[in-house]
Amino acid sequence: MEKIKIAVNGYGVIGKRVAEAVTLQEDMELMGIGDVAADWRIKAAAAKGYAVFANTEEGRKAMREKHIPVAGDLDDLLELADLVVDCAPKKFGAQNAEWYKTAGVKFIVQGGEKHETTGHSFSAENNYASALNRESTRVVSCNTTSIVRTLSALKRAGLLNKARGTLLRRATDPWESHKNGIMNTMVPEPEIPSHQGPDAQSVDPELDVVTAAVKVPQTLSHMHYWTVQLTKNASKEEVLEAFGTSTRTAFINMSDDLSANNAVKELMLDLGRPHGDMYEVAIWEDMLKVEGDELYYAYLVDNQAIVIPETIDAIRALTGTESDPQKSITKTNHSLGITQRFI
Amino acid sequence: MEKIKIAVNGYGVIGKRVAEAVTLQEDMELMGIGDVAADWRIKAAAAKGYAVFANTEEGRKAMREKHIPVAGDLDDLLELADLVVDCAPKKFGAQNAEWYKTAGVKFIVQGGEKHETTGHSFSAENNYASALNRESTRVVSCNTTSIVRTLSALKRAGLLNKARGTLLRRATDPWESHKNGIMNTMVPEPEIPSHQGPDAQSVDPELDVVTAAVKVPQTLSHMHYWTVQLTKNASKEEVLEAFGTSTRTAFINMSDDLSANNAVKELMLDLGRPHGDMYEVAIWEDMLKVEGDELYYAYLVDNQAIVIPETIDAIRALTGTESDPQKSITKTNHSLGITQRFI
Amino acid sequence: MEKIKIAVNGYGVIGKRVAEAVTLQEDMELMGIGDVAADWRIKAAAAKGYAVFANTEEGRKAMREKHIPVAGDLDDLLELADLVVDCAPKKFGAQNAEWYKTAGVKFIVQGGEKHETTGHSFSAENNYASALNRESTRVVSCNTTSIVRTLSALKRAGLLNKARGTLLRRATDPWESHKNGIMNTMVPEPEIPSHQGPDAQSVDPELDVVTAAVKVPQTLSHMHYWTVQLTKNASKEEVLEAFGTSTRTAFINMSDDLSANNAVKELMLDLGRPHGDMYEVAIWEDMLKVEGDELYYAYLVDNQAIVIPETIDAIRALTGTESDPQKSITKTNHSLGITQRFI
Amino acid sequence: MEKIKIAVNGYGVIGKRVAEAVTLQEDMELMGIGDVAADWRIKAAAAKGYAVFANTEEGRKAMREKHIPVAGDLDDLLELADLVVDCAPKKFGAQNAEWYKTAGVKFIVQGGEKHETTGHSFSAENNYASALNRESTRVVSCNTTSIVRTLSALKRAGLLNKARGTLLRRATDPWESHKNGIMNTMVPEPEIPSHQGPDAQSVDPELDVVTAAVKVPQTLSHMHYWTVQLTKNASKEEVLEAFGTSTRTAFINMSDDLSANNAVKELMLDLGRPHGDMYEVAIWEDMLKVEGDELYYAYLVDNQAIVIPETIDAIRALTGTESDPQKSITKTNHSLGITQRFI
Repeated sequence: MEKIKIAVNGYGVIGKRVAEAVTLQEDMELMGIGDVAADWRIKAAAAKGYAVFANTEEGRKAMREKHIPVAGDLDDLLELADLVVDCAPKKFGAQNAEWYKTAGVKFIVQGGEKHETTGHSFSAENNYASALNRESTRVVSCNTTSIVRTLSALKRAGLLNKARGTLLRRATDPWESHKNGIMNTMVPEPEIPSHQGPDAQSVDPELDVVTAAVKVPQTLSHMHYWTVQLTKNASKEEVLEAFGTSTRTAFINMSDDLSANNAVKELMLDLGRPHGDMYEVAIWEDMLKVEGDELYYAYLVDNQAIVIPETIDAIRALTGTESDPQKSITKTNHSLGITQRFI
Repeated sequence: MEKIKIAVNGYGVIGKRVAEAVTLQEDMELMGIGDVAADWRIKAAAAKGYAVFANTEEGRKAMREKHIPVAGDLDDLLELADLVVDCAPKKFGAQNAEWYKTAGVKFIVQGGEKHETTGHSFSAENNYASALNRESTRVVSCNTTSIVRTLSALKRAGLLNKARGTLLRRATDPWESHKNGIMNTMVPEPEIPSHQGPDAQSVDPELDVVTAAVKVPQTLSHMHYWTVQLTKNASKEEVLEAFGTSTRTAFINMSDDLSANNAVKELMLDLGRPHGDMYEVAIWEDMLKVEGDELYYAYLVDNQAIVIPETIDAIRALTGTESDPQKSITKTNHSLGITQRFI
Repeated sequence: MEKIKIAVNGYGVIGKRVAEAVTLQEDMELMGIGDVAADWRIKAAAAKGYAVFANTEEGRKAMREKHIPVAGDLDDLLELADLVVDCAPKKFGAQNAEWYKTAGVKFIVQGGEKHETTGHSFSAENNYASALNRESTRVVSCNTTSIVRTLSALKRAGLLNKARGTLLRRATDPWESHKNGIMNTMVPEPEIPSHQGPDAQSVDPELDVVTAAVKVPQTLSHMHYWTVQLTKNASKEEVLEAFGTSTRTAFINMSDDLSANNAVKELMLDLGRPHGDMYEVAIWEDMLKVEGDELYYAYLVDNQAIVIPETIDAIRALTGTESDPQKSITKTNHSLGITQRFI
Repeated sequence: MEKIKIAVNGYGVIGKRVAEAVTLQEDMELMGIGDVAADWRIKAAAAKGYAVFANTEEGRKAMREKHIPVAGDLDDLLELADLVVDCAPKKFGAQNAEWYKTAGVKFIVQGGEKHETTGHSFSAENNYASALNRESTRVVSCNTTSIVRTLSALKRAGLLNKARGTLLRRATDPWESHKNGIMNTMVPEPEIPSHQGPDAQSVDPELDVVTAAVKVPQTLSHMHYWTVQLTKNASKEEVLEAFGTSTRTAFINMSDDLSANNAVKELMLDLGRPHGDMYEVAIWEDMLKVEGDELYYAYLVDNQAIVIPETIDAIRALTGTESDPQKSITKTNHSLGITQRFI
């Protein structure tokens, strides 16, 4: 079987993880990465053996000065690829999309872009089928992915009436926490509802979900607190079973001393996960509470990692190489070691 | 008129603020403070001219070595006082209560103690009258005070059906942030519901309130996010008017760049508040949203300061020196510069 | 006696403190403040009764929309003043200087500007006399002020050979820590020596001083560690006595549990200092160590406050209203409560 | 060849890394780990296939309740081993030493213990030979290891006269930063000189080194700033060459945007290092400065990882299985991917 040829444009937090995940898929091949920088990140990419393409003339010059081998420019990279995963910073995805269309290559943009950029928003367990053979899709953002995963599970079980969530967001990513952090404060998003609720509805318009969000001074992961109005009185077991239908949702427990997001991060590192990545939504099982027809729970979202398996599935959907959602999800989960029980 | 003679036992975050607030009341007199330490905090108290009493023989010895004048022991202090405000650390209030009873002095304990310690839990705007001439009461904790203030206001307006809140707690107080902080993490309370909901019901059993709480790595204040099921469809104006009935609730606005709790703290300092204290619950006015019969809002709670006016009112209630709640509240508000509009 | 008429241009961290300090001087009068913003900070200034001038037409419009009374523009303000203290952000001081010259008003710029902007760099205890009746001067930055104060003291005692310092800098100021902080990291200045050593020499070229600097994720104050090669073997007493000759250097002690900069900040608040400001360099007395002809010590620098008394003295020097450095320093110290022993 | 049988007692930050490093050595075999806890950390160890031994009856019970298979108790583990690496918390190493002696097994303790516990302090590049066939040694702490590595290199090159360092210490380790951190502050060690200088002299008494230390609120690594009095005027090249003689010292550069310790941590993760570990002392090459006979530089110390290669070498030294220091060091370096140039 011929492998799907993948280009990754933008080698940041998401780009480097997508690139690595692609190399772990039996049905995919990484043709190279495109970027404009020439710092340690790109040097490390070259050191890993990735073909590096310079998106700008300035970038090419800088790379050469740093002795980074340059394989070509962005057009060269696109020519090699069946599909490009755009992982450029927020502002650039939409304009890159025009470039990709012109080049005639299928593409995936990140959740920082608007739904309109591709006209389709993707979350594997919810709407894989609707992305089959499309020219492009948008993998929704980390927070939205976690919302769709968990609420879709409750919806499938017929339990979801409406959900109200408070999202505690990591303030910045570890690699750039020397540049744009917040210190000894909390920064609310100025508006309630915040954008994540409507964003979840771009995947599934039936979800009745309202969110508020606030940045807190830590870099590890997001934490969500939810109050869900169920359709009926339910038992904790019913709810756990519902969440269990998502293969990318795992339970953690306070009783194991997994009592804060730094401990969960360390567990991921102890388990040998690259970068300590957690692809799963980690729901606190023993903290979860059902009272009558109300459900309360909290979970962690690894904002750097959770969209990686979704992106891999989106590749298969767009290229039509796997029409069965469950088969793609299973392949992806296996390649990344995704599990529903960490220990 | 004879002034109410007040002792403050425990000169920490709360004790020092109560002591200072007492000195600002025309109808009260600070007889002294009791403590066991002899560090810079007690030296600063002595430098302010407060009479310092040593609660232990060891403490008395340490104070003398540090050249802090010692006015006597705890019994000496209680003998001078009509009422003692207990501000000792969490574990000690209940056992101190026995001491106070034996000494025949009225007393107030802090929210860290159980309701049973005094059999009465106090929040001025809700239940001042029920504390009149009692021997003792418990001023509920900072978080609970804010909950009772705001939900009581909605209740008075006939708007409150049920309230669900997520509480982002400051991890430790600034003066001891070199000892017991958290770093680059978030620490959920292990159980949902957290204790603040039931605690609010110790003041007002009619409140239908459920809370979840999480510690975040900052020292400035707590931040609460609420989803309230109203009794009916309402306008934003109706809700603002309801909150306006609490004289200890103030509005702040994102449009003034008061966009995070560090900015609000700086405003308090700019306004000349001692320690930058904010006695009011600061509700974001422009962030607050009403959608049909659902209300969403967030506010800040200065955990070091919010209970101070409550304590002053509790003194008047217990000693029966002011039987009209509104008159006591007005006196207290005036003495501390409490306002409903900061700028 | 006629008071010196002062304008403050730029109402940020330094500007607001200079404005307040000016109001505390018997021989000075605050004519108003100039700024371009219309946020809570300017609202608070107006609430304090300061005359507010709009530096730009856009600013004037914004102020009016926010109902802030506008007293005029920058030219109007300068016309009222004998001297303007420029407290604008780093990039603007030099260009404002041209404006002030044109307006024919004496001026002071902050340490963020270059020495060349005024041709004179000021530190009261070192070179007050050389600033007498000048048209302008630059009050050196917080770090440099602390270096000049302490090393000048050792120099006066004939003890200073050479000094090598490591400067741990606060990463940002509290009021803007939601915008440009660093998180869970340390950021070295890219070059050793850092600029503070040469900057100290702009005040006193005889100082043999080399510095390295690094930002750490806290907002409270800078901390300096010094290794000094003395001119001879000395006793700890001799060194303490030398530092004691600076009236703006105070001793603190670990034995009082003043064991971290958060504790020292809280002490300043307990002492009733506005904003918890510390104008003094706080040297740890019991940590200071002399071994033979080597001296080791550490101290704290309140980066928001330390230059305020220097600025007040610089006003008297430039206007020639006090020719005796010691008399100006004493007046300033008294007005601000500056002390050599906090408790 | 028979493999050296290793027990690891204490499965914390150091213990888990020693265990994993042992499994990477061709000449060593991990017999199991001993601990008293039964939380996620031990569950993860069991999940990795390590034999788990319970050091206490209580621990055994807890492990069983958590369904962790228990291979025996500490005596059982020691019976299987030629050498035990003690990685218990600070207070326990000395008393465990007695246990090991009684059991007749060679042992290594960590730098948290006193030199007297074993009578020998180990740093591979400095004194491997002196540890040959000893019954026990102490691998010095992370900070001390970095000091001995770097100053020994200068000493070997005949350049070292005396060194004065300021050590910025991480406040706590990531896995427990929810328990005992510091926030928005800096905490100096109360005494100068701090203990690291004398500790370096326990390995090499000839080093003239004085240190001061301060905790800063981050969890990633220590950062050292040094001022070295050289024996003569030297060039930067001579100094770089001297450091280059340590195979466990690597250069990093600001010009690669490796401008803070979070960036360096991310690079280690990008390079696929387990836990993002950095075994090398990372010296900023372009920041390093020589002025006449004075040298200034800064470097990073990964406090969780730097002692791991030292421990592996110490195992070979004590067991006498490799008498040539360089051969052991080379084997260890190769197994762990230690390098002098990361990118």
